[in-house]
Amino acid sequence: MPSKISDFGEKELIKRILKKTKSQFNSFFLDKHSLESLNEDAALIDFGDKYLVVTSDMLIKSAHFPEEMTKKQIGKKIVTVNVSDLAAMGAKPLGIIVSMGLNRDMSIDDFDQIIDGILEACLHYDMPFIGGDTNESPELTFSGTCIGIVEKEHVLMKSGAQIGDIVAVTGPLGLAAAGFQVLFADQLKIKDLDPTFKDRVLIHALEPEAKLKEGVLLAKTGSVTSATDITDGLVSEIGELINASKEGIGTTINEEMLPIPEEVLEIAKKTKKNPLELALYYGEDFELLLTIKKDQFQYIKKKFTLYEIGQVTSSGKIEIVNKDGTTNILTPRGYEHLGGYHEKGSPTL
Amino acid sequence: MPSKISDFGEKELIKRILKKTKSQFNSFFLDKHSLESLNEDAALIDFGDKYLVVTSDMLIKSAHFPEEMTKKQIGKKIVTVNVSDLAAMGAKPLGIIVSMGLNRDMSIDDFDQIIDGILEACLHYDMPFIGGDTNESPELTFSGTCIGIVEKEHVLMKSGAQIGDIVAVTGPLGLAAAGFQVLFADQLKIKDLDPTFKDRVLIHALEPEAKLKEGVLLAKTGSVTSATDITDGLVSEIGELINASKEGIGTTINEEMLPIPEEVLEIAKKTKKNPLELALYYGEDFELLLTIKKDQFQYIKKKFTLYEIGQVTSSGKIEIVNKDGTTNILTPRGYEHLGGYHEKGSPTL
Repeated sequence: MPSKISDFGEKELIKRILKKTKSQFNSFFLDKHSLESLNEDAALIDFGDKYLVVTSDMLIKSAHFPEEMTKKQIGKKIVTVNVSDLAAMGAKPLGIIVSMGLNRDMSIDDFDQIIDGILEACLHYDMPFIGGDTNESPELTFSGTCIGIVEKEHVLMKSGAQIGDIVAVTGPLGLAAAGFQVLFADQLKIKDLDPTFKDRVLIHALEPEAKLKEGVLLAKTGSVTSATDITDGLVSEIGELINASKEGIGTTINEEMLPIPEEVLEIAKKTKKNPLELALYYGEDFELLLTIKKDQFQYIKKKFTLYEIGQVTSSGKIEIVNKDGTTNILTPRGYEHLGGYHEKGSPTL
Repeated sequence: MPSKISDFGEKELIKRILKKTKSQFNSFFLDKHSLESLNEDAALIDFGDKYLVVTSDMLIKSAHFPEEMTKKQIGKKIVTVNVSDLAAMGAKPLGIIVSMGLNRDMSIDDFDQIIDGILEACLHYDMPFIGGDTNESPELTFSGTCIGIVEKEHVLMKSGAQIGDIVAVTGPLGLAAAGFQVLFADQLKIKDLDPTFKDRVLIHALEPEAKLKEGVLLAKTGSVTSATDITDGLVSEIGELINASKEGIGTTINEEMLPIPEEVLEIAKKTKKNPLELALYYGEDFELLLTIKKDQFQYIKKKFTLYEIGQVTSSGKIEIVNKDGTTNILTPRGYEHLGGYHEKGSPTL
């Protein structure tokens, strides 16, 4: 029996493609960063003193849209996931195209709501909706493609972390994960949950926001050595930065420094989950993960909301110093499409 | 009961989006052509003396991949449909991104074949495969996004046809349609078909080629007043050019001038189809439809393979002069996703 793609998982499949393309690519006009960008959140096209940055993300109902997500929120999410990839590279968006695979029985009102969501998000991120096509599909499917631009000298890549850099995130961890726990939990367990807690985590799960302004401005500081967005889980994304950087680079994070908000602790308790798991592995938070030059971190921190969570080391591993003082090694296992696939409608845990 | 999107059809849905975006767009940096490009084969982004041209096409198994299409041909087609949109605007491709929705049971060999098809097509059109992502989907789905570039002064738009212009196509009509007839016909009916006929039409149906070189070079001549590709059927695409041009523009085509090859006539006869229907309405031919300044047509014709099929008129209608000398009005009805949806695995007729 031939092996199946589910035995490989998304990252292995992408690596397989890269191997095939490598020889082909060298004959093109791509510079070093463009070549590297095959591993990145978005592709880079060499354009004089700038890079065109192009990202494409497919969202499929069964994997990406819980029942509780409104049509407008679906529209917004298509835009957000793409913009987040540009934010992670410090690029300003120029426009988005959305291809749609729709069920022929969809009501025109639902269609309008999706479009309104797309347009509202476009306005929010200050870019035009420049095109799209509609197709019939048994499975509600969207593919957004966002084009952006960034000065070559400012582009943020996954590679570049240096020993001693500060590891930081742009916002709290685990809020989206807590939101999905609320959505999929036995409702009895969470009946006493503070409504403001509930609202806050649900909005993070159903209507996430990309840290675009932060990504663009942080890139311009010149103090950020590497970056990505935390959509596949913190540890998984740290693994991405390590893999992209030079041999031997590692990271130590400190449990005590992790910005895990009260809501996440409370919901984890009620649903009998480990809050640390929610913060480290769940993803969908759409915050940026950054490594920042140590001597510039305090200055940068005055201008941006940043949470220091650890530092870049020479261990070649991802380590965590737990609250009890012990050090443990973390293994990347985030949300991975294919292979890591699981319960309907929610990212894996 | 609310109305369904299938009551509208793709073109109406796109119009609906355009209406919503119009007010939003005016506040952006878009120039006249960029605004117009919402109706185009690809979106234009104003970029100094050039346009960035961005197109995105979604291909879904049940609608776009007949069983007889090999995995490599699927890979090629993803690239071809996108490149054809750039060709229609005279743009040179800079790279393509492909998002994939794959069944987890797909064999790794099938996956490799698809990637090989994508890469082979990329080499053919001289552009790199710059990125992609994989997702799990119950329905095999691909969304390709191709980025191109064209000098502003050379861009080809659907608008611009002038009364008196020659209407021309870059190749024969109906070959892909004949190929689909062969695929879906009662095989008894076509058992005596010349094998070279069969091969030629099947390759057009299963492995079409975009007229990229022709589009780019024709754009540079400055003699082409409007253009699009014939993927949705000739009459439908003529309708697109007329709608995009100024009020009152029409077209007369001459049945005798239509380049309908012998293979199409023979297969239409065997499968009891009207060959004119195959040539006018089926689409999937991936040729370019052009209007060309009359006084420059003979000169242009010496340098390119072009078939004159009619001229631009002031009738506001699409007319055909049939072989018997009668003039009839044609109504655009091409392949339209949603609304015009129909027999599994083949474009509508």
